[in-house]
Amino acid sequence: MGNPYYECPLPVAIPPAKPLLESIKLGIKETLFPDDPFRQFKNQPASRKFILGMQYFVPILEWAPRYTFEFFKADLVAGITIASLAVPQGISYARLASVPPIIGLYSSFVPPLVYAMLGSSKDLAVGTVAVVSLLISSMLGKEVNPNENAKLYVQLVFTATFLAGVFQVALGLLRLGFIVDFLSHATIVGFMGGAATVVCLQQLKGILGLVHFTHGTDLVSVLRSVFSQTHQWRWASGLLGCCFLFFLFLTRYVSKRKPCFFWINAMAPMICVIVGSVLVYLTNAEKHGVQVIGHLKKGLNPLSVSELAFGSPYMVAAIKTGIITGVISLAEEVAVGRSFAMFKNYHIDGNKEMIAFGMMNMAGSCASCYLTTGCKTAGPNIVMATAVMVTLLFLTPLFHYTPIVVLSSIIIAAMIGLIDYEAAIGLWKVDKGDFIVCMSAYIGVVFGSVEIGLVIAVTISLLRMILSVARPRTFLLGNIPNSMIFRSIEQYPVANNIPGVLILQIDAPVNFANANYLRERISRWIYEEEEKLKSTGGSSLQYVILDLSAVGSTDTSGISMFKEVKKNIYSRGLKLVLANPRSEVIKKLVKSKFIESIGQEWIYLTVGEAVAACNFMLHASKSNNQVADEFDAHNNA
Amino acid sequence: MGNPYYECPLPVAIPPAKPLLESIKLGIKETLFPDDPFRQFKNQPASRKFILGMQYFVPILEWAPRYTFEFFKADLVAGITIASLAVPQGISYARLASVPPIIGLYSSFVPPLVYAMLGSSKDLAVGTVAVVSLLISSMLGKEVNPNENAKLYVQLVFTATFLAGVFQVALGLLRLGFIVDFLSHATIVGFMGGAATVVCLQQLKGILGLVHFTHGTDLVSVLRSVFSQTHQWRWASGLLGCCFLFFLFLTRYVSKRKPCFFWINAMAPMICVIVGSVLVYLTNAEKHGVQVIGHLKKGLNPLSVSELAFGSPYMVAAIKTGIITGVISLAEEVAVGRSFAMFKNYHIDGNKEMIAFGMMNMAGSCASCYLTTGCKTAGPNIVMATAVMVTLLFLTPLFHYTPIVVLSSIIIAAMIGLIDYEAAIGLWKVDKGDFIVCMSAYIGVVFGSVEIGLVIAVTISLLRMILSVARPRTFLLGNIPNSMIFRSIEQYPVANNIPGVLILQIDAPVNFANANYLRERISRWIYEEEEKLKSTGGSSLQYVILDLSAVGSTDTSGISMFKEVKKNIYSRGLKLVLANPRSEVIKKLVKSKFIESIGQEWIYLTVGEAVAACNFMLHASKSNNQVADEFDAHNNA
Repeated sequence: MGNPYYECPLPVAIPPAKPLLESIKLGIKETLFPDDPFRQFKNQPASRKFILGMQYFVPILEWAPRYTFEFFKADLVAGITIASLAVPQGISYARLASVPPIIGLYSSFVPPLVYAMLGSSKDLAVGTVAVVSLLISSMLGKEVNPNENAKLYVQLVFTATFLAGVFQVALGLLRLGFIVDFLSHATIVGFMGGAATVVCLQQLKGILGLVHFTHGTDLVSVLRSVFSQTHQWRWASGLLGCCFLFFLFLTRYVSKRKPCFFWINAMAPMICVIVGSVLVYLTNAEKHGVQVIGHLKKGLNPLSVSELAFGSPYMVAAIKTGIITGVISLAEEVAVGRSFAMFKNYHIDGNKEMIAFGMMNMAGSCASCYLTTGCKTAGPNIVMATAVMVTLLFLTPLFHYTPIVVLSSIIIAAMIGLIDYEAAIGLWKVDKGDFIVCMSAYIGVVFGSVEIGLVIAVTISLLRMILSVARPRTFLLGNIPNSMIFRSIEQYPVANNIPGVLILQIDAPVNFANANYLRERISRWIYEEEEKLKSTGGSSLQYVILDLSAVGSTDTSGISMFKEVKKNIYSRGLKLVLANPRSEVIKKLVKSKFIESIGQEWIYLTVGEAVAACNFMLHASKSNNQVADEFDAHNNA
Repeated sequence: MGNPYYECPLPVAIPPAKPLLESIKLGIKETLFPDDPFRQFKNQPASRKFILGMQYFVPILEWAPRYTFEFFKADLVAGITIASLAVPQGISYARLASVPPIIGLYSSFVPPLVYAMLGSSKDLAVGTVAVVSLLISSMLGKEVNPNENAKLYVQLVFTATFLAGVFQVALGLLRLGFIVDFLSHATIVGFMGGAATVVCLQQLKGILGLVHFTHGTDLVSVLRSVFSQTHQWRWASGLLGCCFLFFLFLTRYVSKRKPCFFWINAMAPMICVIVGSVLVYLTNAEKHGVQVIGHLKKGLNPLSVSELAFGSPYMVAAIKTGIITGVISLAEEVAVGRSFAMFKNYHIDGNKEMIAFGMMNMAGSCASCYLTTGCKTAGPNIVMATAVMVTLLFLTPLFHYTPIVVLSSIIIAAMIGLIDYEAAIGLWKVDKGDFIVCMSAYIGVVFGSVEIGLVIAVTISLLRMILSVARPRTFLLGNIPNSMIFRSIEQYPVANNIPGVLILQIDAPVNFANANYLRERISRWIYEEEEKLKSTGGSSLQYVILDLSAVGSTDTSGISMFKEVKKNIYSRGLKLVLANPRSEVIKKLVKSKFIESIGQEWIYLTVGEAVAACNFMLHASKSNNQVADEFDAHNNA
């Protein structure tokens, strides 16, 4: 061990090989259970384990016994406020999904109840959301026309909802929830912004009171459709829409300025609905061309198990829709749920949440509900569901005269808030690459379709990640004066070169994707250094030190790269020295006999020690002490 | 700057923001021109640049003037040896590609001449190869039956060859040759082994003299086809085949043991052809059921430009075949060319080579050649091409009586050498993951099809890479006794914990794929450390140091992760300290105001300094010196 000429404080440790089974087990644990979800079960008696297990899977068992009347009073107010938002939004979003408005109300009743029992977040209100509604109508509407074949379309929607639930449960059970992480923050900002833009564009139909409208969702089709029938625009409807929009934006502005008036913002949509309905009722406007919702059936959710059409020829479309809407809604709710959890400082197990959401959608699809998710608003689900139940049982006739233009205004007002241009500006400032991902998602959604935007953004994100692995950075290191610390000369211009020694740092795992690149790049570093030394007439290059501190792992292609680099370096009459190989790397270097071939005395714990050893050798090999003087001169500069 | 209580030798440098254009330019250079191919052009007068440019694109201009009679004598012997291998192999592989045998000979004449002018490697013999031939027949044979519609099939083969050439040139010109790197060493070992196995299985037809044979290439179909017609086996043919095989393996064994007899191995196939032909001629065996090649047309390659069928309905298949065979042949020849270059110590520009190979295939497809690549044998291409020319002009009638069984034996003997089981064992020893990739490629090819094997192996490789980014390792660091060095406690069990300080190292770029994981994992490290301290009754945790030495880059999701981790750490009453953030990371942390929020005095150049600062603070905050004593006690242990 150790260089024969130089005393090394501690040799680089080569960890013993782990048994295969154990390393597989560890790998699975780190990959699928990084948050160690069962840690509370450790060292508990069996009975306690059972209770904890029940509370784990049905969290209501944990908090219900601690629920007090005080909690209830607060929840009651909040729940009714949320319900007054949920009812008009439910009706509006159902129209966006091209399903009958009553299904939107059904979807605000059963799923919140299910989530209240199974979900771990008390703050996440459950309901339908606009983007997923749009996705459903744009993906399933391509297969079955919802106007011509309404029954089949609704069946497909329930089936897709059920499949989305199955997919969500499967992701959660298999602990594969991290797939959702691949929808990066930048992707979601762009995607949501684009979808919100598309949804707003669709509302031009309702606002302008148009009867015929394009089936396309992209900007070009919609604008062509709108401006090709300017003679059909109903100015009364448009004026009414603008008034409601103004009112909605005003209330939002007020409640943003004075947070104590948050309920004004929450109540505003309901106020619009009431005012709009009363106006229409009084003026008989529905007979003069103002479209209204019309008859809504009284009563709770009918069962819809028999509607699930698994044998239908549109099954492929239903599966595709289920998977995409399932993932999108998970991405939305995981992000939202996490921000609530962070705010209130409790911990959420993403995979368990997915199971809860999946169960909720599977149950929902059997009770005439379409896809629901966690929304951006907070509220107690049980109270909200009760309020919706009362609405369903007694109040549905009141919506008969609600004009469509009000619903469109409500949707637009909600959607504008989703276009998070400030976040996009933040992305541009901090990370141009993320900004490109965000904008490509936005442009893809607005000019192509929702799926195209999503696919483009995820592809660019992944390509960017793969490219960053395929083209890792390499840095030239220098000595920070008066220390044994070596840092990139690019970042620390005060760092000094060591004469006769080239120190390179590799910045990523070395694997098949970058092995060739690194070989070329290292050879170019050496070539450039030799050219520089030749032109300045400095002492010639003797040692190449590779700092492997940042090389966390490698594979057989990486090992070949090291072998080829060694061959190249030796053929130039230089010596290769390794600094700080990490456990995964040193293990493989030993197994492949690379360490044997360069000699264990050329592996050091730190770059500093490697340089010291090289200097020692340079001293020993030169009769005069020129090199040492140079080093000292540099070091004291 | 620096901690108010503790003097830091050098603050962490925050490099100035680079202009956007400059960083884009640098990014493109590092991504597409990592080897700086034009460095020899720098600082040269225009005339010299022109000459260098011509030599760059047509390397024969560089070496032809230096060619001497001495070189020629050596090349003549080697070239004739290689040609005597190329002729029987060309005929054999043509049969494998289901094209007339004469096309195999044509393909050993024109492409080597083109490559001799444009290619940078003097040692790489050019010709057809078995795996690509099999790929062509299996991919195009699905579309057009080569027996029933021979003319259309050959047209498709020429078209696919032309498209492969176009694709190769395009990859080279766009400097995207690194795409080939994604076929890792492990993938190629498994894929080649599988393809060789499949090719050997196909030869059972020739060896057993079967007339009917399955179109499938997978093990199950072939074995079923062979054993369902045992009564059709021609034992004479089989016996002859075994004799030739024995002879071929014997010569290989001899030439491996005594490298001076390498020509025996190279000549053996030709000897088999001659012996086999003479035997058939003397015994009139072709009239007794031994299949022979039959008539071969005399004369050089006819032009085939008019055969390129770009308008055909099978264009999609031709494009797919062109791309896949183009990439596979590139992967093979880049690996081979590099090993020759390394052996003879010259440099090869992979992208330039791709242009040469692409031009060669485009030219070849216009001269009745199918896809050719660099082979595993070395030899002077011009002499070889001349020898093949002589064969084409004068010797083709001699192959009339060559029995098919000889060709099958030659193919089997060549293929067995491609099954590199030693490499597979090496993969198992060094890297289990690579072994899995290799075996999945092998099994996919043997039991599925060539494309399936390839797709599976590339997918597994990429998933493995993505997973390694999504689940980076985090390490607990400790102090190496009697030093300021901090290393993973797992790798260096002698390293000591610092009381009150938790030091974590993150081992990969922090981005959208791993931000959530890292947040969970760091929070678990803190939880576990606090639990441990609670159970041992040690001093409570005060500081969490994140060592960012190995975090080369980050994105906005990564920044959010840092913000969330900070919030979590602060909510537990701890302090977050960063050590050695690299330039890309510190830039983004500054831009996103994260550094402002934790205070610049909590960023240190090394872990050692961060720990020293934490200890200083612990001293200052505690009235007694308990902590310092503990630290000293640990350090002197």
